[in-house]
Amino acid sequence: MAVGLHDFPLIPEIKGIRIGVAEAGIKKPNKKDVVIFELCEGASVAGVFTQNAFCAAPVRICQKHLGLAGSRYLLINTGNANAGTGKSGLETALKTCEALANETGVSVEAILPFSTGVIGEPLPVAKIVAAIPSALANLSADNWRSAGVGIMTTDTLPKGSIRTFEFDGLTYSIAGISKGAGMIRPNMATMLGYVCSDIAMDVDVLQSILKDVVNKSFNRITVDSDTSTNDSCIAVATGMAGNTKVTSVDEPLAQAFIVAFTEVMQELAHAIVRDGEGATKFVTVEVVGAVIESDATKVAFEIAHSPLVKTALFASDPNWGRILAVVGRAGVEGLDVDRVQLHINGFEVARDGGRSPDYLEEHGKQAMAPQEIHIVLDLGMGVESDIVWTTDFSHEYVTINAEYRT
Amino acid sequence: MAVGLHDFPLIPEIKGIRIGVAEAGIKKPNKKDVVIFELCEGASVAGVFTQNAFCAAPVRICQKHLGLAGSRYLLINTGNANAGTGKSGLETALKTCEALANETGVSVEAILPFSTGVIGEPLPVAKIVAAIPSALANLSADNWRSAGVGIMTTDTLPKGSIRTFEFDGLTYSIAGISKGAGMIRPNMATMLGYVCSDIAMDVDVLQSILKDVVNKSFNRITVDSDTSTNDSCIAVATGMAGNTKVTSVDEPLAQAFIVAFTEVMQELAHAIVRDGEGATKFVTVEVVGAVIESDATKVAFEIAHSPLVKTALFASDPNWGRILAVVGRAGVEGLDVDRVQLHINGFEVARDGGRSPDYLEEHGKQAMAPQEIHIVLDLGMGVESDIVWTTDFSHEYVTINAEYRT
Repeated sequence: MAVGLHDFPLIPEIKGIRIGVAEAGIKKPNKKDVVIFELCEGASVAGVFTQNAFCAAPVRICQKHLGLAGSRYLLINTGNANAGTGKSGLETALKTCEALANETGVSVEAILPFSTGVIGEPLPVAKIVAAIPSALANLSADNWRSAGVGIMTTDTLPKGSIRTFEFDGLTYSIAGISKGAGMIRPNMATMLGYVCSDIAMDVDVLQSILKDVVNKSFNRITVDSDTSTNDSCIAVATGMAGNTKVTSVDEPLAQAFIVAFTEVMQELAHAIVRDGEGATKFVTVEVVGAVIESDATKVAFEIAHSPLVKTALFASDPNWGRILAVVGRAGVEGLDVDRVQLHINGFEVARDGGRSPDYLEEHGKQAMAPQEIHIVLDLGMGVESDIVWTTDFSHEYVTINAEYRT
Repeated sequence: MAVGLHDFPLIPEIKGIRIGVAEAGIKKPNKKDVVIFELCEGASVAGVFTQNAFCAAPVRICQKHLGLAGSRYLLINTGNANAGTGKSGLETALKTCEALANETGVSVEAILPFSTGVIGEPLPVAKIVAAIPSALANLSADNWRSAGVGIMTTDTLPKGSIRTFEFDGLTYSIAGISKGAGMIRPNMATMLGYVCSDIAMDVDVLQSILKDVVNKSFNRITVDSDTSTNDSCIAVATGMAGNTKVTSVDEPLAQAFIVAFTEVMQELAHAIVRDGEGATKFVTVEVVGAVIESDATKVAFEIAHSPLVKTALFASDPNWGRILAVVGRAGVEGLDVDRVQLHINGFEVARDGGRSPDYLEEHGKQAMAPQEIHIVLDLGMGVESDIVWTTDFSHEYVTINAEYRT
């Protein structure tokens, strides 16, 4: 069902990164469900995490470990989220970190754990621990596609992105993978995203860039408005490209990095939407003409979350009245409905609080037919804007989520 | 598909009220789509309306007329919402009022217009005007059921409620009808609700009671989180019961009225949920243990709106982790997840931030099996609470809303 999602790209070696995968049999047989990233010594590692108060045990440990030691391994499992598991969840997450630390001879704080899958069931520690040696045994620089497959849950396709850029005679690479298809309304992070570059960059600069770019990528997508308990996005800079370490976001190299990094992050975020549960459309909701940016963001998310708008998108039905009704209830202070304008895929649909004089139903049908829909809603009040990406709401979404556990 | 929705009750005469219905052929043939309420001279009339900025033309006119003259007629059409129709929408709504005023000899301000149906299409004035004489010709005190049917759109059943109470030797009646099944997340009003009593009551007192009780009934239901452009709820007190006019909400008779009026309003609000588009469950979401009531309200609505919770309800799947995940993202200040408790239909499911020690999956399955689900979420922080009523999210919902116009 994925909408315009391309094949997983050919990702070359990112110097300083090796990846291993294994089958632990956590939930399903014959599924790679444990992925280990090995990071070279001295790599800068930044992270952003879910803002959900019920954040999962691995998220809590990750946040703690990230500040304590140079991170050397990312340990990821699917099939079980280790969320809603209380105190024992923290213990089981820590046990898997200890096992990997013992196998590799690093400190337990050098391990960052990640889990995704069913909420509320005890993490099967023994299965994960047993799978660690085999994941370590196949550590390799070319395992990016296997890692993309290994972190999938309800995803139908693995998601990856790669960019290279040159600066001052050196070539830099940025590669990443992501996963997620439902419970997608990230807040400061996504389901799971891992982006690695060979650039040398101070960890504080990397953290600051990650936080900014997440707000233009993973924090602007929504499938079903539900923020996960396990959202995590990690950026790694291995420092193997040969540059003098970037120590300020104002350096020209940092700016060049941000451009390529944003492309990778947006491609990975869009991939999650394109593979959204039951998606038949990839929808860009752009709100312009706001007085303050947060109004544009709010209206865009309200449109993107409306079940009535989403089912109309599924039906390719130009039911623009539903979009205006959402704008009207979004709580924009000082909204003058007579100045609102709506374009869908280039067709002017509504203006002055009503249907555009030249609008014909056949225009609407033509506008709504493609898989890629671009909605531009002009509030007519100011110059601020924002963009959110989402999907439609189909029978398949209900089927997937009514049958996920059973 | 309606869940536990009883037959339309036998509603006796409410003195001072007559109802007429007619077929105008607005959208479908052989469908009663125009309803007229005739109110006796001197009746007190109160109203609450949608807070949607894109409120429909009839809502604007209704609000204006309500303050200008003694209201004598309610003119309701289905099949067309006259919303998103700009300035010409106001003109067409006014034309229907003028036609009814001319037929009955009252002032145009004594007419309150209401429309419900498709948004964004011009109101077919001529058809409505042509139907007015035949609606007036069958004005009768026993037409409550016909009125309930006449205001239906995607509703599968008409919705009515009746209560009588005695006070100080006099008998009072309160009767009402409502409609609505989708785009249901009223804010200060519902889709359409009309409640009439024979009590004599000052209009300011009636307005104040209506506003309060709406917040315990129509403003606490949600089907799909979308607030309509046309929500209107009207209360009428004809003054025919024989009592001295109630002039203060503190009078014992006012208090007795509030009890019965609340029952009618809640029954009508619940009926909308029970007939929610595609509903297979009637779900009561009760949040207790909040520090401030608005936190309880917020959490209850977030649970009630979550597509993941709603699809789990559809599947009768005790996927309680999804409920905790919603609570965690709801933005309750100072939330301590280790104090949260969750009961479903009397079974303790979660406590201390995780699954209850005694919980077994079969308890969850048993708890989720009935059509009526009562969720009690204890935040463990204070003593405030609130209740919201909602439905599950089924294939039928998608079908109805993907096919509504086409």
